[in-house]
Amino acid sequence: MPPIVGVIGGGQLARMMIPRAIELGFEIRVLAENTGMSAALAATAVGDYTDAATVLEFARDVDVITFDHEHVPQNVLAQLVDAGVAVHPGPAPLAIAQDKILMRQELSALGLPVPAWASVGNAAELEEFLEAHGGKVIVKTPRGGYDGKGVRVVSDSSEVADWFASGAPLLAEELVAFTRELAQLAARNPRGDVALWPLVESLQQDGVCAEVIAPAPALTEALSESAAQIARTVAEKLHVTGVLAVELFETTDGRLLINELAMRPHNSGHWTMDGAVTSQFEQHLRAVLDLPLGSTAARSPWTVMINVLGGPATGTIAERYPQALANQPTAKFHEYGKAPRPGRKVGHVNVSGDDLDDVVYRARAAAAILKD
Amino acid sequence: MPPIVGVIGGGQLARMMIPRAIELGFEIRVLAENTGMSAALAATAVGDYTDAATVLEFARDVDVITFDHEHVPQNVLAQLVDAGVAVHPGPAPLAIAQDKILMRQELSALGLPVPAWASVGNAAELEEFLEAHGGKVIVKTPRGGYDGKGVRVVSDSSEVADWFASGAPLLAEELVAFTRELAQLAARNPRGDVALWPLVESLQQDGVCAEVIAPAPALTEALSESAAQIARTVAEKLHVTGVLAVELFETTDGRLLINELAMRPHNSGHWTMDGAVTSQFEQHLRAVLDLPLGSTAARSPWTVMINVLGGPATGTIAERYPQALANQPTAKFHEYGKAPRPGRKVGHVNVSGDDLDDVVYRARAAAAILKD
Repeated sequence: MPPIVGVIGGGQLARMMIPRAIELGFEIRVLAENTGMSAALAATAVGDYTDAATVLEFARDVDVITFDHEHVPQNVLAQLVDAGVAVHPGPAPLAIAQDKILMRQELSALGLPVPAWASVGNAAELEEFLEAHGGKVIVKTPRGGYDGKGVRVVSDSSEVADWFASGAPLLAEELVAFTRELAQLAARNPRGDVALWPLVESLQQDGVCAEVIAPAPALTEALSESAAQIARTVAEKLHVTGVLAVELFETTDGRLLINELAMRPHNSGHWTMDGAVTSQFEQHLRAVLDLPLGSTAARSPWTVMINVLGGPATGTIAERYPQALANQPTAKFHEYGKAPRPGRKVGHVNVSGDDLDDVVYRARAAAAILKD
Repeated sequence: MPPIVGVIGGGQLARMMIPRAIELGFEIRVLAENTGMSAALAATAVGDYTDAATVLEFARDVDVITFDHEHVPQNVLAQLVDAGVAVHPGPAPLAIAQDKILMRQELSALGLPVPAWASVGNAAELEEFLEAHGGKVIVKTPRGGYDGKGVRVVSDSSEVADWFASGAPLLAEELVAFTRELAQLAARNPRGDVALWPLVESLQQDGVCAEVIAPAPALTEALSESAAQIARTVAEKLHVTGVLAVELFETTDGRLLINELAMRPHNSGHWTMDGAVTSQFEQHLRAVLDLPLGSTAARSPWTVMINVLGGPATGTIAERYPQALANQPTAKFHEYGKAPRPGRKVGHVNVSGDDLDDVVYRARAAAAILKD
């Protein structure tokens, strides 16, 4: 019998696990939120991941449960573990990914570099933090935010009065003066092996990852080693299993600060599908099955990933293929089977090569045809 | 709606089309001979491909019909075409792939280099051919042979008396003095674009492809150009659509002779899955859908493909993964979901790198763990 991986969540991250699972002979089963989702190409059950009975039933015959997202409630995760199901990443690291205040607490406790932060329970506490940090700060809802949602730049506590109304504390962070955003992708298996891909640069657009350059240009060895050490510490000390993405700021004074963590395959790692010996999706499957990890070496001097955000204004991506494939024969196109909608991630393009300017040009040209 | 490709035949070639179809957002439907076949991961109907009604029903909602093998009868193909179904490759090129005597006739008529050959209808004609070609020749059944089956080295016509008993003529060919076997992989779409991958060397073992080295070592430009010209001529003049593999002998006196043709993705092209910008499976899908073809450039100086023949003597490939993945972290493993059986192709391994000796070593080590 092949190993069976149960994935909770039917989005594009689950979908992108399927091709390498097929090639390696692993079986994927998906518990999707709805019918017709991205990952519905694998054996798919539709059900509510917040319902323990549904999740336990789904988990009955799989070798391991893993995730397309980090939103499965802790009480459901606890019941899985109690039932003897292998769950990777486990409830403890997922709790940290689910709550940004807990994440900051844990990272600070490990002595890892993070922006100045505070848990603020009311307007007065936020005003105090504002005063101490230049009058303009970042405020985040601790739970449920992603892709720029749940994040505001705030100069006055009244700007998050609606969030305070919920009663839960908010995360306040200094506005970091950074030159660029970097991401360190890692994987760890339960037996404790850690693999680190090259450090990449990510370019955001309206709070959403738009482009990734692998490796990050003008990297010093010190910077690479620092990022690797941070990701290794996070993975080991927080007992992360599977893929871990550590989003980092490179500050104007040359330090690295941790921005966000993701405990699953991550947009900043999509370049690995064509640009690395082992893709993040293959590695995630290997890691959660407690198999040895693969080489994370880059396959080309440069790989650039561009997200197709929104998709074509008219028609479908498939209708743009004749033009896109003809225009950029070296581009690798990835489509998520999702209907185009403004700002939505509907696919991405990877291009590899020896000359960065040329690679960026080709990748942008290919993606542009798919999204106008 | 995504483009829908209907694949007749449920073997590993159909299976290996699925991952890139998922990534590109194409839909694959398979008409498999039996339940539980390699390609049963896609939407699969089970039915008899020699039955026109079954095939017509399967073809009703697809954009194109293509193949995992070349055995669909001409009368079934003709009915598909009559019904307005796009069929790639079409009945005419498939007829040539289905009959080795017709293939030799067509190639000879095009002036392409082939071994000396004759259609022999009886023992006397074979004895005459034997006398003219050194007393030892190759005899092949024109139809249905593959992987060394239907091929004999013959010194006396009595050695194929059983084949003559069927009444059909046999193909007799001179025993070619060759230094090595090469394969030129090509793809052509209906609009007439042709793409050619680098020329590779294939090493056979008991008549079955065992290893492929891409590109073929010690290639001269003249040899590369000659092979490319042969494949381009075959593809264009025989109106091949989809992937075409031209198996070649390099003779002791430095000529190329065509050994066999395959009008589908081919074992000699499995290296492209990890070693070329566009794999033969992606290219086949693009070609049969009449989309522009992708770059066929190699991604590394060397890629070596090793077949896993037979599989492990005890247990399954999955049980060998812990050892294999740990031993060779750069190897890309491909498993076909088939039960191990002596000599059966159950998977393959690709390894890429800069140093050929090292790449061969790693690939052989990885494959050896999977098959003892």
